[in-house]
Amino acid sequence: MKILNSIPKSDGFSMPAEFSKHYGCIMIWPHRRDSWQYGAYAAQKAFTEVIRAIAQSEKVIVCARFEDYNNARAMLPDHVRVIEMSSDDSWARDVAPTFVSDGTHIRGIDWGFNAWGGLEDGLYFPWNKDNQMARKLCDMLDVDSYNMRDFILEGGSVHTDGEGTVITTEACLLSKGRNPRMSKEAIEAKLKNSLGAEKVIWLKSGIYHDETNEHVDNICAFTSPGEVVLAWTDDQNDPQYAMSKSCLEILENTLDAKGRKLKVHKLPLPEPVLISREECEGLDDMDGEPTRTPGERLAASYVNFYISNGAVICPQFRDKNDQKALAILSELFPDRKMVGIYARDILIGGGNIHCITQQIPYFKRTEDMI
Amino acid sequence: MKILNSIPKSDGFSMPAEFSKHYGCIMIWPHRRDSWQYGAYAAQKAFTEVIRAIAQSEKVIVCARFEDYNNARAMLPDHVRVIEMSSDDSWARDVAPTFVSDGTHIRGIDWGFNAWGGLEDGLYFPWNKDNQMARKLCDMLDVDSYNMRDFILEGGSVHTDGEGTVITTEACLLSKGRNPRMSKEAIEAKLKNSLGAEKVIWLKSGIYHDETNEHVDNICAFTSPGEVVLAWTDDQNDPQYAMSKSCLEILENTLDAKGRKLKVHKLPLPEPVLISREECEGLDDMDGEPTRTPGERLAASYVNFYISNGAVICPQFRDKNDQKALAILSELFPDRKMVGIYARDILIGGGNIHCITQQIPYFKRTEDMI
Repeated sequence: MKILNSIPKSDGFSMPAEFSKHYGCIMIWPHRRDSWQYGAYAAQKAFTEVIRAIAQSEKVIVCARFEDYNNARAMLPDHVRVIEMSSDDSWARDVAPTFVSDGTHIRGIDWGFNAWGGLEDGLYFPWNKDNQMARKLCDMLDVDSYNMRDFILEGGSVHTDGEGTVITTEACLLSKGRNPRMSKEAIEAKLKNSLGAEKVIWLKSGIYHDETNEHVDNICAFTSPGEVVLAWTDDQNDPQYAMSKSCLEILENTLDAKGRKLKVHKLPLPEPVLISREECEGLDDMDGEPTRTPGERLAASYVNFYISNGAVICPQFRDKNDQKALAILSELFPDRKMVGIYARDILIGGGNIHCITQQIPYFKRTEDMI
Repeated sequence: MKILNSIPKSDGFSMPAEFSKHYGCIMIWPHRRDSWQYGAYAAQKAFTEVIRAIAQSEKVIVCARFEDYNNARAMLPDHVRVIEMSSDDSWARDVAPTFVSDGTHIRGIDWGFNAWGGLEDGLYFPWNKDNQMARKLCDMLDVDSYNMRDFILEGGSVHTDGEGTVITTEACLLSKGRNPRMSKEAIEAKLKNSLGAEKVIWLKSGIYHDETNEHVDNICAFTSPGEVVLAWTDDQNDPQYAMSKSCLEILENTLDAKGRKLKVHKLPLPEPVLISREECEGLDDMDGEPTRTPGERLAASYVNFYISNGAVICPQFRDKNDQKALAILSELFPDRKMVGIYARDILIGGGNIHCITQQIPYFKRTEDMI
C-alpha cells in the first residue's frame, strides 16, 4: 500500500455513485456498551440481518475486535469474511475509506476522523482506533491510500451521483468540531478535489436531533443521476418540517454538474421514534453521564438505506410508512430487490443501515493481488 | 471462509514443498518483552531485514498487534502489507496455517497450538491469540480452513518434499505436551492424511537445547526431492554430535515415498552461541522468573533458512562457518540468490528465520477474490 499525498481529481480518480457496481461492502461488528443496549446483542442481530441481505449480491467484509472475533465469526455465514481490526465503535460509513476509482483501479481516501466533532461536540473519546481503520482497510484490500488525515470528514456527510455532483450539509461540514479554520469555499474545493467532483450542493440541515451534526445520508440520497429522495414530513409542527422544506427549496433551485434540474422524490418520515426507559437502562453510562435520556427522539429516516448490487436495504420502524417508503424506493430502483429490515436496534446507536456500511466499488484485480 | 472437517488427502490436497512457487509469505511483528530484548527493537530491525529480503521476490503480509501497527507500518516498505492481528508472540511458522494445495486452490490447516507444550512444558501462557491466528489468516486470504484444532502441531515440526515424504522428530511429535494420548502410529496417520503424504521419516532428535522440543526445521530440511541438508558438527564432545549422527543414520537408511535413497548434505553448525548477561537483562521476567540465564546456549543452526521464490534467506552468526553454509546452500539452490542475514537478535527469541516465516503456495485467484 502506498500512502499518497497527491490529489485524487488530478490523478483521474473520482468517487463512484453508490448505485454503481460494487466489489463489496465493509461493515464493523457492534460492541460498544454505551452505544448499543444490553451488551450489543440486539444490535449484533440487526447487523447480522443487514450483512446477510447485502451478502446476497456482493462480498461483505466484517471487521471485528479481537474480543468479538469468535462470536462474530460464529454468528455470520461462511461466505462473509471476518477480519480482526480494532475500532472504537461500528460506523463503517464514517471510518472506512471513501473509495475513488479511475474506472479500473480503486484507491481509498483516509480522512481524519474525530468522532463527529472532536473535543467540541464529538460523541466519544478517544477515537484513535476508528481513525486508523481507513488506512488499515486499504492495506488489507491491497489498494493505495490518500492521506487526508488533516481534513475531518465522515463518509456519511457526502453523497455523489458519480457524475460530478456532491451533496452535503452546512450543519455538518461547517460545524465547529471539524475544520473550523477552513472557509466554506476551501471545504468545497477540498471536496471537489478529493471526490473528483465539479459541483457541491449545500443543504442547510439534515434530520432533527441527528447527533452527527446532521449528515446528509440521513436526509437526502441520490437514486440515479439527476434524481434524489428527500426525507419529508407534512407535519408543520414538527421541527423537521422547516428543515426538510429548506432542503427541498435548495434542491429544486440548483442545477447539478451536468446542468440538470434535480427531480426530488419525497420519502415520508416515520412517526417520531423515542427511546424507552428500558432501552436507556441497557446502555452503559459514558464518562459518568447517561448516554441517552428516556423519551429522547432518535434520528429515524428511511433515507438511510444501502444500495447493494442486487438490493436496496432499507430501515423499517414498525411504522405505517414502512411499506410506503419501500414502495417509493421500489419505483426508483426497478432492477433491485427491496429488503426492509427492522432497524430500531441500529437506530439506538445513533445511525442506521447506510451509516454501518461502506461500499467498495468494483475494481480490476491484478494477477498477484489477494 | 468455510471451516472444513474433512481430510485434506481425501480431498486431493497436499502440502507443497517450500521450494515450490509461492504466492507469498506471512510474518508477525515481534513485540513480546520476555522474548525479545530491550523492547524488541533489535528483533524488529532483524525481522525487517528478513521481510525486505523476502519481499524482493514474493508478497509479504506482516501481522501486527493494534499497539504495534503504526510502528510496523512506518518501518516496512510500501509493498509489504501490514494487517492488524492479535498474537501472543511472533512465530508465523508455528501459528499461521500450514497450506495445502490441489494444484489450483489452497486451503489452510488450522492446527491446535499450545505454545510448544501447553501446561506440560509450554513456553508461555496464555496462547489463545496465537491459536486463533491460522483461522483468521485463512479468512483474511479468503481461503477455506481445515479445523484440526484437536491435534497439536506447529509448522516448524514438519518438512515435506512435496512428493509424498514428510520428515519430523520424535522428540517433538511424541512429546508429553502435545498429543500424549495418541500413539506414534496414530500421529503418523494424522500427518499423512493432513499433509497428503505417503511416508513419514522420524528423526529421533533435533538441535541441542532447542526449546521447541527440537523442531525438525532447525536440524534438517529438504533442498529438493531426494536431497536434504543436515545440521552437523564434527566435535564429538558437543552433545549435538550424537544427535546429528543419529539423524544421519536414519536418513541414510530410509527410502523416501518415491523409493529414493536420500542424499544428505552436511551443513556445519556455528560455534555454540551463548546468550550474554546484557542480553538477558534486556528481557522481561516471565511469571517472576528470568526468561534466560547468562551463558545459556541458544539453538543456532544454518538449517533454519527460508526459501523464497528468488532467494534462500539464511541466518548468519558472525561465525567462521557463515560463508561455508552459504556456499553449500548456493550449490543446492543454483537458481536462487543467497542472502545471509545476521540473526542473533532473532535467535535470542528461540528460533530463527524459518520459524518466523510461513509460505503461502501459489494459487489461482477467482475473479471476485480479494
